Amino acid sequence: MIEDKNPQRTSISQLGEFGLIEHLTRNFDVTQESTLKSIGDDAAVLDFKDKKTVISTDLLIEGVHFDLAYMPLKHLGYKAVIVNLSDICAMNAKPTQITVSVAVSNRFPLEALEELFEGITHAAKEYKVDVIGGDTTSSQKGLIISITAIGEADENEIAYRNGAKQTDLLVVTGDIGAAYMGLQVLEREKQVFQVNPNSQPDLDPYTYLVERQLKPEARTDVRTLLHALEIKPTSMIDISDGLSSEIIHLCKQSKVGCNLYEDKLPLDPQFISTCEEFNIDSTTVAINGGEDYELLFTIDINDFDKIKGNPNFSIIGHMADESEGIHLVTRANTKIALKARGWDALSE
Amino acid sequence: MIEDKNPQRTSISQLGEFGLIEHLTRNFDVTQESTLKSIGDDAAVLDFKDKKTVISTDLLIEGVHFDLAYMPLKHLGYKAVIVNLSDICAMNAKPTQITVSVAVSNRFPLEALEELFEGITHAAKEYKVDVIGGDTTSSQKGLIISITAIGEADENEIAYRNGAKQTDLLVVTGDIGAAYMGLQVLEREKQVFQVNPNSQPDLDPYTYLVERQLKPEARTDVRTLLHALEIKPTSMIDISDGLSSEIIHLCKQSKVGCNLYEDKLPLDPQFISTCEEFNIDSTTVAINGGEDYELLFTIDINDFDKIKGNPNFSIIGHMADESEGIHLVTRANTKIALKARGWDALSE
Repeated sequence: MIEDKNPQRTSISQLGEFGLIEHLTRNFDVTQESTLKSIGDDAAVLDFKDKKTVISTDLLIEGVHFDLAYMPLKHLGYKAVIVNLSDICAMNAKPTQITVSVAVSNRFPLEALEELFEGITHAAKEYKVDVIGGDTTSSQKGLIISITAIGEADENEIAYRNGAKQTDLLVVTGDIGAAYMGLQVLEREKQVFQVNPNSQPDLDPYTYLVERQLKPEARTDVRTLLHALEIKPTSMIDISDGLSSEIIHLCKQSKVGCNLYEDKLPLDPQFISTCEEFNIDSTTVAINGGEDYELLFTIDINDFDKIKGNPNFSIIGHMADESEGIHLVTRANTKIALKARGWDALSE
Repeated sequence: MIEDKNPQRTSISQLGEFGLIEHLTRNFDVTQESTLKSIGDDAAVLDFKDKKTVISTDLLIEGVHFDLAYMPLKHLGYKAVIVNLSDICAMNAKPTQITVSVAVSNRFPLEALEELFEGITHAAKEYKVDVIGGDTTSSQKGLIISITAIGEADENEIAYRNGAKQTDLLVVTGDIGAAYMGLQVLEREKQVFQVNPNSQPDLDPYTYLVERQLKPEARTDVRTLLHALEIKPTSMIDISDGLSSEIIHLCKQSKVGCNLYEDKLPLDPQFISTCEEFNIDSTTVAINGGEDYELLFTIDINDFDKIKGNPNFSIIGHMADESEGIHLVTRANTKIALKARGWDALSE
């Protein structure tokens, strides 16, 4: 697919490893005060002064984490950065730098790598993080992206997974489930295209869903919003594997139970109508579909007044004693035990 | 090869992603004071107080960077860590933490991953670095390892590549070329084995060379040694791609020239005799063969007395004005321009 689209091809071996790194990183500026030395030495040098350093890393493999049939390389580069920044946001910290390593098989021309790095550069600029290092190499098969994200925070603002108390409220940002339905729409189009290559996909009714899948955003704004409301989350996690799975992580690590309310789940109207069209239960998708990169956190019950009615946040449940277990309370007021099924649950 | 050796096989999918991370990281202790939060949250949290943070990352791909036919998984895990720690040493900094991400195809049973992590754990313990995060996932083909190393240093002790002055001396630690010849020995044995699977390899005469290739060490001791001698290197780099290539990096970034003396190159007797046996010019291997993970650095000429005769260091040349270029001065006293050929030079 990549080869067909691009008439101009430069072999990666023509540039050599050193030429390639220089070429791909030429658009990266240093904007963070904490970056003392960026790309160009054996290692980057950072200075966080009295802040703590927060570090997270992710490995993305073609055919496992993404499908280039419907994921343009520019979007992939953007999303790969976002996924990692989201982990830093999930600590209630501020992302400041990333390192980017890429391995590609020889089926990728230089122009393909440039497109990928265009997406990476775009995300780095958008989120004001410095690309301070990395590695480019060849792979035996497909495209491999490894990103490490670095961030900073004051010690007292860092939110771990294990701080939830049994009286806390459970809050989620934005809306959930849309990224998963975006993927369903794209997979359907891919199948239609395979049967009839002349078909024109009409993605207009699904713009929001497809965007949530192809161009997710990291909630770097939440830290500022909470700070302004004078709320310190007692625990926090990002929604990559699905709400259900993440709630269980918070509960297990905090040794508490939880009641999640079906009627409180924040769902986009386009998400609901597409679930109906696909004949899938929207609640099942909302709690098990992943990749929303929204933040899930708990707050002290005394902070209720500060957050209620705020359009950025939805209170979707409350924590409980560990012995009460972890449940979804349905609209019909029945309790169903939550299971950490994530993506698997939906492919059954 | 892996499948045959191991009668007991546990499929990775039996454990699931979360189980796998918990299982593989159970032997990692936190020993560094700077590690506030290790594995188990969205990100790790570090505190370097008034020290600077140094970060480097590497991606290792099966079939490109290593061959499991002669690289046991335990050694591979160990070496993957060393390669990254070496980059931190090359900044004259102290390695403190690493993150480890691994992707494997389903041809690897759990026992293979355990062996790999045994090597990683061993290196981490040996060098007192904390494994603070990572990712495990499946790959379409082969084994992929991505490691990010983190270290600390006082700002005034960090050595960059661009600090060499034209009057500086050029110094290297240990001896060079042995790792490359170790690889040649292993490749020869592999070919013999392919022709006659009953052959017993006799590696005894090559123990040092094979060890340099399969179990390299990171020169974390050099920082302490130099500190004790009251020497601050003006520039520094580690020898991964070959001496010649690294000298050119230092020269280009420092805007100086260099004269490297053939008769000063530190070569092990086993290395010299094996080069003779293989009928390869030892100087060519010494300056172009890589993976020695020794440190190359420049010092002020006034520090000569502090370092001369020290068994840990060899003065192999001196820097010069940029206009003089970068040369090898042979035993016959002729000057040959150095080229950054690295590994390629030897496969011509």
